[in-house]
Amino acid sequence: MTMMGRNRRLALLVEGRFTPLDAKTAVGVLRYRPDQVAAVIDGSRAGHTAQSCVGVGGSIPVVADLDAAAACGADSLLIGVAPQGGELPEEWRATVREALHRGWDVLSGLHVFLGDDPELCALAANSGARLIDTRRPPRGRPVAARRAAVLDALVVLTVGSDCNVGKMTTSLELVRGLQARGTSAAFVATGQTGIFVADSGVAVDAVPGDFAAGFVERLVLEAAAHAEVIVVEGQGALHHPGYSGVTLALLHGSCPRAMVLCHQAGRERVRPPNSREERTESRPQIPPLAELVRAYEAAASWVCAGRVVGVALDTHELSESDARHVVQKAAHESGRPATDPVRFGPEVLIDAVEACRVRGGDRATLG
Amino acid sequence: MTMMGRNRRLALLVEGRFTPLDAKTAVGVLRYRPDQVAAVIDGSRAGHTAQSCVGVGGSIPVVADLDAAAACGADSLLIGVAPQGGELPEEWRATVREALHRGWDVLSGLHVFLGDDPELCALAANSGARLIDTRRPPRGRPVAARRAAVLDALVVLTVGSDCNVGKMTTSLELVRGLQARGTSAAFVATGQTGIFVADSGVAVDAVPGDFAAGFVERLVLEAAAHAEVIVVEGQGALHHPGYSGVTLALLHGSCPRAMVLCHQAGRERVRPPNSREERTESRPQIPPLAELVRAYEAAASWVCAGRVVGVALDTHELSESDARHVVQKAAHESGRPATDPVRFGPEVLIDAVEACRVRGGDRATLG
Repeated sequence: MTMMGRNRRLALLVEGRFTPLDAKTAVGVLRYRPDQVAAVIDGSRAGHTAQSCVGVGGSIPVVADLDAAAACGADSLLIGVAPQGGELPEEWRATVREALHRGWDVLSGLHVFLGDDPELCALAANSGARLIDTRRPPRGRPVAARRAAVLDALVVLTVGSDCNVGKMTTSLELVRGLQARGTSAAFVATGQTGIFVADSGVAVDAVPGDFAAGFVERLVLEAAAHAEVIVVEGQGALHHPGYSGVTLALLHGSCPRAMVLCHQAGRERVRPPNSREERTESRPQIPPLAELVRAYEAAASWVCAGRVVGVALDTHELSESDARHVVQKAAHESGRPATDPVRFGPEVLIDAVEACRVRGGDRATLG
Repeated sequence: MTMMGRNRRLALLVEGRFTPLDAKTAVGVLRYRPDQVAAVIDGSRAGHTAQSCVGVGGSIPVVADLDAAAACGADSLLIGVAPQGGELPEEWRATVREALHRGWDVLSGLHVFLGDDPELCALAANSGARLIDTRRPPRGRPVAARRAAVLDALVVLTVGSDCNVGKMTTSLELVRGLQARGTSAAFVATGQTGIFVADSGVAVDAVPGDFAAGFVERLVLEAAAHAEVIVVEGQGALHHPGYSGVTLALLHGSCPRAMVLCHQAGRERVRPPNSREERTESRPQIPPLAELVRAYEAAASWVCAGRVVGVALDTHELSESDARHVVQKAAHESGRPATDPVRFGPEVLIDAVEACRVRGGDRATLG
């Protein structure tokens, strides 16, 4: 599979931020498209491997600069962070300029579009490089109208207790697991990292609110043409003060019959949008899992009934025995099968999803 | 008060669509800014008055074309409809061109920005006219973080059973009524028509989803600097398949202590996004009022508790005795005071809002 038009040897730019939480985009690409990655650029960690820094990416080297990345065979630059607010860190501008000067395409999932920057556009035009902004909304102004509710295909949506709790990862593990069982399953990417991984999709958080559900609906209908199970990557959380609207648009655009609730074990409060300025008290507490289940099922029912069929925990900060314990506890509290799909495999979730297929179109709908 | 920079004599362009539901923007401007309107352009109704066509606007004339509007003193053109999808009706293009040729500013709340149209831009530049797109997102990428929850001012949000059920009108009637009682009240406009009326605000349905709640939060914080009660214009509905995300972003960005639920008496199903293509069955049923109350209070509680304090009905399609009956029934069903604020006055709603001020900061908050 190509990435944005061709096979690439990417340098992932994450300078000073090559950690699992800060370099979310880079980590996603390393986990699911390592074939496209030549090197990671972070001068503060040069000499390490990707695996030693973020737990994925194997022996892909971390290097200090573009010269070193070029020596590893890189031919494209990918901005590997998704900072809140979505701007290009000013200190990275020189690196982007230099990449364009070399004729490298620059791939970005930032809210600020590189293709709208006159200086970068001029540099790209000079060298024949492309500026690829995956968050740029596609053409059209679709308005959702519950069209996904009547599909024969089973739609599964990952939902969460917060941002960055494993919705994309869980979605991709589900698709891999379903495919391994011979089920035709499709992944619908709805965020910048998912789009790099899938080489398609729409960044729903970047489209005008009126059309967010409509773009999701369109993606689901397209996927239904060639898959029996469609796993839609969720975004945000219903309890997140900044992003809940995007979450609800996804829920009502995709009309999932099944939802998988994602949560990072041990996280008690919604992560601040900007860790430098927010006090702890201003961050809402994450409710208990059973309450989250009720909230997502209630919100789904406003347009089309759907059920939370399982819980996916991110336990990477815990020891194995602690992880097993919190998984058991989550299953008990939520009344749903639970697992850490990366650590312990997604099988129980896949069983739950397959069970929905067997039951088929038995769900109640409004109206 | 000026409109977009100066006093205007507007011609409202609504050709062939001068009805209360189709010409929503024109009707709002006629109701709340008639001082700025010289004429309405609809050749199919030329010779009538605004009042006789849509029930507001008094003797403002309906005329056939720009020449006739100019004879009424018009000096600016306002696009008076907000079609789903948000494009300029192709057959109106000639009128817009002609207005620009005359040097008239053209004001638009469409999703498609006139200022991005090369031909119209060139015409405007030639004649010195301005293209004013009120739906264009302002600068910035604010992310909401429950900052409105800790204000001393009382935040009131109008919410609804659907689009176009009187949220803007109810908001403006509340502000007028509160001011008449000597309370310092501010209106926060969140849609294109409200922005024309208030001469400020942000069209939240047109900003990228990640920042919708953030822009609302910013508007509320600004309004709190000079008002004791802030009435925020709601958008969409939690049960609307296409627009629910915008509704939830507004709810979580503004953190209202009080909500007023708006509904059109007799409407049973969500209005289709495009009446030409949708079958009735695909449109969700509007739940009973008591269920809507529960849904809005539940959704508010995910970020910051708030209460539905009253119900505002649009009864314009009913006889007076039928209207009185449905108002009573709505009060009974919802357990909240109810009225048609335009027909019977907003007093019971204002009493309910004032009661929240007296109770002050007694609400439970998460976290």
